[in-house]
Amino acid sequence: MNDVRITRVMTNLKARGLMQIFICDPMSIKWLTGYYTLPFERFFGLLLAADKEPVMFCNRLFPDASGACTNVILFDDTDDPIPLLADQCLHDQALGIDKELAAKWLLPLMHSGAAQDYLLASDAVDGARSIKDTAEQQAMRAASATNDKAMAWLRSQVKAGVTEFSIAERLLAEYRRLGAQDHSFEPIVSFGANAADPHHEPDNTVLQDGQIVLFDVGCKQDDYCSDMTRTFWFAGEKNIEPDDLSYRVYETVRQANEAAEAIVRPGVSFAEIDKAARDVIAAQGWGEYFTHRLGHQIGLVDHEPGDVSSTHDEPVQVGQVFSIEPGVYIPGKVGVRIEDLLIVTEDGCEILNSYPKEFTILH
Amino acid sequence: MNDVRITRVMTNLKARGLMQIFICDPMSIKWLTGYYTLPFERFFGLLLAADKEPVMFCNRLFPDASGACTNVILFDDTDDPIPLLADQCLHDQALGIDKELAAKWLLPLMHSGAAQDYLLASDAVDGARSIKDTAEQQAMRAASATNDKAMAWLRSQVKAGVTEFSIAERLLAEYRRLGAQDHSFEPIVSFGANAADPHHEPDNTVLQDGQIVLFDVGCKQDDYCSDMTRTFWFAGEKNIEPDDLSYRVYETVRQANEAAEAIVRPGVSFAEIDKAARDVIAAQGWGEYFTHRLGHQIGLVDHEPGDVSSTHDEPVQVGQVFSIEPGVYIPGKVGVRIEDLLIVTEDGCEILNSYPKEFTILH
Repeated sequence: MNDVRITRVMTNLKARGLMQIFICDPMSIKWLTGYYTLPFERFFGLLLAADKEPVMFCNRLFPDASGACTNVILFDDTDDPIPLLADQCLHDQALGIDKELAAKWLLPLMHSGAAQDYLLASDAVDGARSIKDTAEQQAMRAASATNDKAMAWLRSQVKAGVTEFSIAERLLAEYRRLGAQDHSFEPIVSFGANAADPHHEPDNTVLQDGQIVLFDVGCKQDDYCSDMTRTFWFAGEKNIEPDDLSYRVYETVRQANEAAEAIVRPGVSFAEIDKAARDVIAAQGWGEYFTHRLGHQIGLVDHEPGDVSSTHDEPVQVGQVFSIEPGVYIPGKVGVRIEDLLIVTEDGCEILNSYPKEFTILH
Repeated sequence: MNDVRITRVMTNLKARGLMQIFICDPMSIKWLTGYYTLPFERFFGLLLAADKEPVMFCNRLFPDASGACTNVILFDDTDDPIPLLADQCLHDQALGIDKELAAKWLLPLMHSGAAQDYLLASDAVDGARSIKDTAEQQAMRAASATNDKAMAWLRSQVKAGVTEFSIAERLLAEYRRLGAQDHSFEPIVSFGANAADPHHEPDNTVLQDGQIVLFDVGCKQDDYCSDMTRTFWFAGEKNIEPDDLSYRVYETVRQANEAAEAIVRPGVSFAEIDKAARDVIAAQGWGEYFTHRLGHQIGLVDHEPGDVSSTHDEPVQVGQVFSIEPGVYIPGKVGVRIEDLLIVTEDGCEILNSYPKEFTILH
């Protein structure tokens, strides 16, 4: 049980006028208690309430949680866990609800008389998780350092005749060799026009001379995630020069990436950072081809709440870690994305990826 | 769009007094429309309403759904999708809610005036999905046939000095060689006392002579899942005979598995099938060590709703596919589980796994 983190969550909660919250996100529970289990379809959660001991609700099938939480309520598959939770709530108060709580639990809970009202309150937890402490920052530096090395390995795999899938399937072994434990998400390897689909899944596409090669990959190392994207030009044996459009798109995306990174410092809003990149791309007339938010926060999982987008007006804070990943996707033609992670510092930011971003031609 | 399946869902829904349902389970949407995407944190769903065309709600980042559904409402990351959904609902009716719908969407929807009430209604979809049609049954036979072959391969990997992890990490390649595409869940490989934890994850435990070896594995082949468990005795070079407790537990679990399989036919309830296995184990005084339900339904995903447990009183129906997986787990000592999949037929059931269940000593 991490009392400092629980206090940070309760402070956030009280600032929102709430005295209690039911948390079911397994990663948030791990972050608060050290206990981790993946409940799949089963009920699992942690109730935090003012002036009460935290209570964890666990199926007996899960590993023993007693080391992480002194107050564990156990149940079997044949028990209904909702009355057990309702019984522990402050009935005369509103209950903060985890944004991921499934309807199958929430609707019966709302009929149980557990609380006066049910209000989304994950931002109290997510806001606390968003500010990484010193140990977390160190873990994220290490995971991104591994990712930089993996990108060098990926680049070395680019050769005529290779398929997207054959590179992607060997990346995990390389991550493990470098000290990571797993992917932080399924790797994206895209050749040619496949790069114009931002979420393309690696398939049996064979690399041709004169194609774009895009890698969007991340590892999980000591519980923390990395995530970066680099885009290359493969000239091949025929030494096919990059076409003008591909080159101009690349340079624009790189400038957008750097323009956004350049303005990050405490007090600047996520929306302003998004705009810094978007303006560079829009100035070239490609605004409609930058179809996603600029970035996302990251930590114990690869996508954490609080995105870098035009609708997120809050200022960034010291210790937050997020991606800067502008992209331009012209369907059937060109796709380029360049992504780094960074940590917000007192006077700017620390970019966690050092792998070069200059336009690079591979042979 | 599969009109036969949509009609089956709407019939189930009307039998529950509902005229509309919002479905967000990606596998249910795939089953109904042929379109599959994994939305992660983003909004995604299908609205079915009486006498209206189905409407799909998709983020523009997802692959184009227009081929699967004629009525697709698109939105961007910066849009609020809830008013778009609310606008399409029958406002004077209750709305059926997918049991997996996250609180972050459900609570705003309940405040939007979309419908008169919000009622859990996934069972209308799950009940339809539960009855596998001919093509689905054939796919499940094929996936289990592959799993039988994989079990023979697993058995061949049991030798002195091997670790749980080293076997588990090579299983995917074997599945692919056999024609499957993926695991249907992370494989469980447990040596010795690790088998007494039903959800043990493979680690660096080294196999010793005179230990139990438990494999609980499944593959995904052409979209459908397999899932089976076999438990062996490893005598090794020292030729260590099984201890009496391990042998008696094994025989009891095998008899429990066979007793349950023997009574499956249309009209018998899930609870009666559970009881048939549980009684065999309880008669030996080990009832408290059989800590989970007897089984689960399976299809496009490995755990589908409608479990084989003491609280599920409904009769089984022709075309349902589920597992029979009794286990006895005596902490720190012995763990045995034996699991088959079966299809309910007109006059009994068809067991999908043919890998032998006799007590087997490996050297």
